[in-house]
Amino acid sequence: MSSFVSFLSDFGHEDEFVGVVHGVIAKLSPDTRVIDINHSIHPGSVRSGALSLMRAIQYLPEGVALGVVDPGVGTERLPIAVQTDWGYFVGPDNGLLSPAVAMVGGARIAHTLTNPEFLIPSAGATFDGRDRFGPAAAVLASGEARIEDLGDEINPASLTPMILPLPEVGENQVSGHTWWIDRFGNVQTNIGPDELAEIGISVGDAINVKIGVNEQEVKLVDTFGRVAEGDLMAVIDSQGLVALAVRQGRASDQLSVGLERPVTFSRI
Amino acid sequence: MSSFVSFLSDFGHEDEFVGVVHGVIAKLSPDTRVIDINHSIHPGSVRSGALSLMRAIQYLPEGVALGVVDPGVGTERLPIAVQTDWGYFVGPDNGLLSPAVAMVGGARIAHTLTNPEFLIPSAGATFDGRDRFGPAAAVLASGEARIEDLGDEINPASLTPMILPLPEVGENQVSGHTWWIDRFGNVQTNIGPDELAEIGISVGDAINVKIGVNEQEVKLVDTFGRVAEGDLMAVIDSQGLVALAVRQGRASDQLSVGLERPVTFSRI
Amino acid sequence: MSSFVSFLSDFGHEDEFVGVVHGVIAKLSPDTRVIDINHSIHPGSVRSGALSLMRAIQYLPEGVALGVVDPGVGTERLPIAVQTDWGYFVGPDNGLLSPAVAMVGGARIAHTLTNPEFLIPSAGATFDGRDRFGPAAAVLASGEARIEDLGDEINPASLTPMILPLPEVGENQVSGHTWWIDRFGNVQTNIGPDELAEIGISVGDAINVKIGVNEQEVKLVDTFGRVAEGDLMAVIDSQGLVALAVRQGRASDQLSVGLERPVTFSRI
Repeated sequence: MSSFVSFLSDFGHEDEFVGVVHGVIAKLSPDTRVIDINHSIHPGSVRSGALSLMRAIQYLPEGVALGVVDPGVGTERLPIAVQTDWGYFVGPDNGLLSPAVAMVGGARIAHTLTNPEFLIPSAGATFDGRDRFGPAAAVLASGEARIEDLGDEINPASLTPMILPLPEVGENQVSGHTWWIDRFGNVQTNIGPDELAEIGISVGDAINVKIGVNEQEVKLVDTFGRVAEGDLMAVIDSQGLVALAVRQGRASDQLSVGLERPVTFSRI
Repeated sequence: MSSFVSFLSDFGHEDEFVGVVHGVIAKLSPDTRVIDINHSIHPGSVRSGALSLMRAIQYLPEGVALGVVDPGVGTERLPIAVQTDWGYFVGPDNGLLSPAVAMVGGARIAHTLTNPEFLIPSAGATFDGRDRFGPAAAVLASGEARIEDLGDEINPASLTPMILPLPEVGENQVSGHTWWIDRFGNVQTNIGPDELAEIGISVGDAINVKIGVNEQEVKLVDTFGRVAEGDLMAVIDSQGLVALAVRQGRASDQLSVGLERPVTFSRI
Repeated sequence: MSSFVSFLSDFGHEDEFVGVVHGVIAKLSPDTRVIDINHSIHPGSVRSGALSLMRAIQYLPEGVALGVVDPGVGTERLPIAVQTDWGYFVGPDNGLLSPAVAMVGGARIAHTLTNPEFLIPSAGATFDGRDRFGPAAAVLASGEARIEDLGDEINPASLTPMILPLPEVGENQVSGHTWWIDRFGNVQTNIGPDELAEIGISVGDAINVKIGVNEQEVKLVDTFGRVAEGDLMAVIDSQGLVALAVRQGRASDQLSVGLERPVTFSRI
């Protein structure tokens, strides 16, 4: 039976980086299959990588999650493997893995990836995805190594967290920010329907949304089909968060909004 | 032995959408392998998706074709599975699947995807690729479900067709339009060599081509190597359609032409 | 046990070209798995494709390497398969495969791909990736055919080489050029640490780098973490070549440098 490594990175598709990591895994564990979660994370954007991995994790086959968004490569940040009820997480200890690890119940055991037996020697600077993280993911997936074999045990409580700002619920408004814009121009916020419920807003209500200088009335809906084509809506999206969307259009363009901009929803 | 799901969508590579669908399929049917046909269909462009799937289908291993270009998600369009001599097609009933289904001999049976047993619950709005189409493709591929298990039977004759405009053959000219521009700048038309033959044009002939205000003489050839570098040609391309191409150049740039523009070929 | 085809091309991800080749391989050899090395090679850039394949080859599972960057499709250039100690290489005889073949010890046997038994008929111009190279890779991977079955034997010494310019070592300086810019803006040169050692430069030294009109002092380091954020460095990169890089920044932007520009390193 196949084992799986699910792989997320900021390596993009312009170079052979992703293919080389696939190759390394295939050489070490030929029966392991690799699922590419997303390699288009903005270079070095640990937070975006963490969000993408967190959203994906519950849909991925149990096994190994390999995450490499690693602006600190070549510094003192630790390369780690973490064991959870879902399986193993492999990557840099910079917060990238933390939200997904928390999502599946938290870390049970953590080890550094420092055993030289599982490193591929490099002709120059280490390419950790290829030389260290890929091999660790492969041997965990194949069962050739246990996590204990990979390096020193570290306290899971000492792992670097990813601080994700929480929305603030006021008397008549909920404030948060935009944290993802997808290919379709849908603008996901960090606000959920529960926060809106606290101020008495529920599906079907007309609400006021303020993003930067832009302020307008929209309807809170549970599915894209509830408004007319071209209309802006606030929709509880497929991850259960409130997103701004335009039916058959691009909300990000209509609102001229980028990432990490403040958003406020209020009752009318 | 492996089963295959061949997967086309407009999900792009910026988000984890494609990876999540791969994950869903792997969880439900670990031995099924997924072939990515194309995920760069322009968002919501059902016609482009239909053309890309139609061109690919005869080269894909029999099994399941999963197509998701679905601007009507959350509306009354039906989610469907269609059985053909080639295998199963899964996606929205919006015309996306129709040309490929026709290519392999037509639909024998069709069912809606409405059995809740094969839906993944969503925290918010349904992401049908992940929650409905992916699972249906997986269970058909694994053999865990028959098409009858997925929902209500519908009449294959009632499926939404994709109207693809046919070229018009006049006395001395054939009129059609541009319907694909590929990465190399080759401009595929909906005109085939048979239509040109009706007005007496065959391979080797010099012909007149008119696109917008642009009008010039080109040679109709059967392979790229027949003209000098930089020269525009009309070539019977690898799908058997007449395309405008420049040897070692980009016809789309040289002609400043986009999609769905009128094209006329005539005798000189 | 799985066999592997590792696949590099300039097909991009905008069309279904890559997916169709995967389909062709799956139909002919269902147990073969395809690793995508890189499909973003600039259209027709044989040299970039050759460099990417050369860098990847040692990390790929032994089997078949399929390379298609083929601006001469439809001309007299030969389609070939080459046998090496690593496995088979399949592609056009235009230099694309040569550096990788040399990297694994050179060609032992070479054959053209001219046996019509292993060609897929096309409705028009041949799409060699789909009709000729893909099928050849598949049957070599599956063992259904031997290289002798694919076409005429040719002398491996007659294969088209890829001329890669060598750096020039002077009394106090080493001159070369930029030959890759990756997603992170790192600028790889064709100069290695051995050439720098010949003029007395070693890791830790401050050196002078000249690119176009830009001239400045940088440190030669062995890993990215050795300089402050935002600082330009010369780093011996993960392929063992000297690259210009900026910690947490983009050297290509900071230097406004493109591909194949002259670079000179000298002692201070």
